Amino acid sequence: MVYRFSGRMGRVPESFLDELFRVSAVPGVISFAGGLPGSAYIDVEGLRDAARTVFSEDGRTALQYTTTDGYLPLREFIADRYRRRLGLPATPEEIQIVNGSQQCLDLVAKIFLDPGDAVGMERPGYLGAIEAFSLYEPVFCAVPLVEDGPDLDAFAALVREYAPKFFYGIPNSQNPSGRTYSQEKRRGVAEILEGTETVFYEDDAFGELFFDGKPRPPVKRYLPDLGIMSGSFSKIVAPGMRIGWLYAPEPILREFNVAKQAADLHSNFLCQVILHRYLATHDLDAHVARVSAVYGRQCRLMCDLLDDLMPPGVTHTVPEGGMFMTAALPDGVSSMDVFREGVREGVAVLPGVPFYVNGGGEDTIRLNFSAVGEEEITEGMHRLARVVRRLA
Amino acid sequence: MVYRFSGRMGRVPESFLDELFRVSAVPGVISFAGGLPGSAYIDVEGLRDAARTVFSEDGRTALQYTTTDGYLPLREFIADRYRRRLGLPATPEEIQIVNGSQQCLDLVAKIFLDPGDAVGMERPGYLGAIEAFSLYEPVFCAVPLVEDGPDLDAFAALVREYAPKFFYGIPNSQNPSGRTYSQEKRRGVAEILEGTETVFYEDDAFGELFFDGKPRPPVKRYLPDLGIMSGSFSKIVAPGMRIGWLYAPEPILREFNVAKQAADLHSNFLCQVILHRYLATHDLDAHVARVSAVYGRQCRLMCDLLDDLMPPGVTHTVPEGGMFMTAALPDGVSSMDVFREGVREGVAVLPGVPFYVNGGGEDTIRLNFSAVGEEEITEGMHRLARVVRRLA
Repeated sequence: MVYRFSGRMGRVPESFLDELFRVSAVPGVISFAGGLPGSAYIDVEGLRDAARTVFSEDGRTALQYTTTDGYLPLREFIADRYRRRLGLPATPEEIQIVNGSQQCLDLVAKIFLDPGDAVGMERPGYLGAIEAFSLYEPVFCAVPLVEDGPDLDAFAALVREYAPKFFYGIPNSQNPSGRTYSQEKRRGVAEILEGTETVFYEDDAFGELFFDGKPRPPVKRYLPDLGIMSGSFSKIVAPGMRIGWLYAPEPILREFNVAKQAADLHSNFLCQVILHRYLATHDLDAHVARVSAVYGRQCRLMCDLLDDLMPPGVTHTVPEGGMFMTAALPDGVSSMDVFREGVREGVAVLPGVPFYVNGGGEDTIRLNFSAVGEEEITEGMHRLARVVRRLA
Repeated sequence: MVYRFSGRMGRVPESFLDELFRVSAVPGVISFAGGLPGSAYIDVEGLRDAARTVFSEDGRTALQYTTTDGYLPLREFIADRYRRRLGLPATPEEIQIVNGSQQCLDLVAKIFLDPGDAVGMERPGYLGAIEAFSLYEPVFCAVPLVEDGPDLDAFAALVREYAPKFFYGIPNSQNPSGRTYSQEKRRGVAEILEGTETVFYEDDAFGELFFDGKPRPPVKRYLPDLGIMSGSFSKIVAPGMRIGWLYAPEPILREFNVAKQAADLHSNFLCQVILHRYLATHDLDAHVARVSAVYGRQCRLMCDLLDDLMPPGVTHTVPEGGMFMTAALPDGVSSMDVFREGVREGVAVLPGVPFYVNGGGEDTIRLNFSAVGEEEITEGMHRLARVVRRLA
């Protein structure tokens, strides 16, 4: 049987995401490969209570269809949090609820990209974004990510030469590198974009998870009309509910809403109502502080073990928050070999390759420190060190 | 501020869906415009009990990330129901869970359509499909829908001349017409497509809702390799959970899965688990029979009132199931006027226009008979008759 698939399907890089979720689930394998928040820090009881209340007070409404934009009280909560935490003048009319912030990647690409359009990315960049954008057949232009954010000369040259429809970045605890833009880089990026038509798409999945508990000012603060931000409850409440959002100027949000409606009418309403009930009756700040402290300890432990156990030539980033860091391997050691050998040894890591558009990343691995506890991090790092030593 | 949106956004017809959901919510307006199942027939208590069990037995898992394909026990339930109800040899590996079957419209278009490709549709056709497909910039080719399904000569000519990537149809209680393909038309469509490369995309949102309770054989039974089917729990359990699925041959489902992962990683897992628990512990057949009987009574009442109250020149379809029928207006009466005047009179209908690609439908309206009870149908039909008489 011959099926005539669209040209765009040939543009998708081979996916690791689903495979790594499967590897993560193999018993006995300690996985640093996935992107799961720690299961122990999901407030099951709190969400159960919220669900119970919703079913008894408002169940019939929450089980019906609703409008595309999403549950108004939830959008009010999100807008209010932007105002309070980040000093952004957000209103509920600028917020659209989506199925986890991954859906923003698809829909932002959909409303902006024609085939051949330029998209700016960090290098390395989030692989889920690369996958989602690829389906719109853009030309990827990447800016190297250095210690404290994008190389500004390269960023300015990219914007000037390619005038990308948007630049996609993760200024807070980037996936995969764990790097955070400095204040100077945030202003620098905004200054370069000011007066252009290139949108800055700020994926803020990890901004609540700084180990020091201090919010960093988003680029959007310096670039209100060209800045759009995506956010998610997956990392701070529960990923299984699939609730994220886009915060964008109204002309952009109108197009985004059209695309969202065509994509799936609206996001799961039951969970929107349950989540709002939970947020209205629980202290999210305290919960986030607890989770961030745990991730901070786990991150420091992982850094220390990398320093102590790995052979010479292994370096790593030192995250200020989030869930990921990147390690560079010794000369000649392939991240694909570390991935394959690692699974045999009972430890999973994610090769850097899928995070690099136009090639690269063979000598890096991404390590997640949120999903497994300190005991498993210790054991897993010992296993990983054995693998890397053997291959070095 | 100039935003450079993609060319595809200019292709989207003006949307009615969100507006009609809003109109449906205006107090005092009796709405035949929406597509809501009757709220009274959502089993809130049953779903509440299922949720309670899930939270206490498996809450932590259901609140985490999962794989893209969807919850295996739920896919097993769906495959088993295909085997039992429709005699289709379905396996869970051929089922992908999505956010309501609307998401199938987006993702099927995504995996098949390059700009300029031909898509076959019924005329009139489902407006949500027209909106979703439009974003992939196809050429629409439409086949008139007659009493018992598509005009087969026109269908054969369309397939021969345009070789569409797929033909999208709703053989059971079509939206908006309420028409159902005869057995002869089902075989005819399959015979015409056999040996071609045109996929038959069978949207089966309403196949469980025949008033006589008897399933009709899907076109896919006669066309296993070229047939794909979408289904949904929105009309038979609860729309607010946004859970539907695609059933397709494995080579198609593999591409579909890639597109789904890029779109939003996976559908809401919490609701997948709650829904499965509900289905495993409740009698869906009995529930569906109860709902279908109610809709059947409401449909007959609406037909009778149209016959009794409307001025000469008004005709209507006579559905065997589902939630919709179409009425044709007297010569010179515009459906947009009926829509606008109706809202003023306290009754909302949906103009036929958005269901017609390439123009048409000015003299038809779609009427929903599932969302409101018999008393409201009676009052609403009186209001509507006043509007049509005034305009005629």
